[in-house]
Amino acid sequence: MSKLLDDVVGELAKLPGVGRRTALRLSMHLLRMEREQVGDMAGAMTRFRNEIRYCVRCNNLSDEELCPICANPARDRSTVCVVEQVGDVMSIENSRQYNGLYHVLGGVISPMQGIAPSDLKIDLLLENIARGGIREVILAVSTTVEGETTLFYLLNKLKQFPDLKVTTIARGIGFGDEIEYADELTIAHALHNRREVSR
Amino acid sequence: MSKLLDDVVGELAKLPGVGRRTALRLSMHLLRMEREQVGDMAGAMTRFRNEIRYCVRCNNLSDEELCPICANPARDRSTVCVVEQVGDVMSIENSRQYNGLYHVLGGVISPMQGIAPSDLKIDLLLENIARGGIREVILAVSTTVEGETTLFYLLNKLKQFPDLKVTTIARGIGFGDEIEYADELTIAHALHNRREVSR
Repeated sequence: MSKLLDDVVGELAKLPGVGRRTALRLSMHLLRMEREQVGDMAGAMTRFRNEIRYCVRCNNLSDEELCPICANPARDRSTVCVVEQVGDVMSIENSRQYNGLYHVLGGVISPMQGIAPSDLKIDLLLENIARGGIREVILAVSTTVEGETTLFYLLNKLKQFPDLKVTTIARGIGFGDEIEYADELTIAHALHNRREVSR
Repeated sequence: MSKLLDDVVGELAKLPGVGRRTALRLSMHLLRMEREQVGDMAGAMTRFRNEIRYCVRCNNLSDEELCPICANPARDRSTVCVVEQVGDVMSIENSRQYNGLYHVLGGVISPMQGIAPSDLKIDLLLENIARGGIREVILAVSTTVEGETTLFYLLNKLKQFPDLKVTTIARGIGFGDEIEYADELTIAHALHNRREVSR
């Protein structure tokens, strides 16, 4: 077999969820792309890996010392939305419903995977709050066991700031979700947090 | 959002079967890899795209003018196995049951996708046979409508070589396949090509 092909298949198969068969399919796709396009893709990968930084304030991925959101003077600096990972920032930004800052924990507490609170950017969050100016912290972590563990850990840590408003995002039936297939905990939350409809 | 992240997500999302969400997941994986590893991956992609060639004899992917199989003096040069694509060569090689040469058509005849016989490397195959020395051609194309179309087209073309032995790979129930779920055509072939068991 061609060494060039063997190399690219072997390299691409290192990506998560990509086996040798998929890697071969991706490699064949590279052949159908222009050389310049493949160069652009490879260049974006190495530049991303070599030059990306973490925002010193919120731990989001950033090209500069401060990420575009923290650097934006139009954002509401009194509200911080705490999320697990970078993708969550993108999802919330896409909703166009939030104008505050973020704080990226970089994961959730997971004894099973050996992720302790000290592995997350929790101290940075507490420092930012202690510095003053933040009035509300929105905890937007997943409703998984690990997420809930992280939530309770954070709630406990935030007790040291009695004037701080701490909220969690609403739990309920998602749009497009069928009640029939929702789990009991979600239904319990959705019922408990029911809202009166104005008529 | 970080431009470096936006770039790499946009580039990876150009791969087949990779949406923006998967591209983000792959990008996050790049961050967990060593810089050198990401460089190796990107390098393998560009080298493959820029330096790969097609074997002048069999149209397989190759680093040189002749692919390693065609260049190997230990291979039986009197037998040629005709396959659709590069991945088929790898699958058959992995079976370790074949010691002849290959011929990669580069696809199958598909009027629906606008792939005509002239888009495939059929002329090269006929030239190789006309040059002499090939005694058997094994047609190993898929049992799809397009594969069968290609098979009949090739059989017709090969009529000009009356001394050539032309075979097709056996159709039947695959190992691990259940007869209950096999389609009628496969069962018909499997019955028709039944073999007596030596007792």
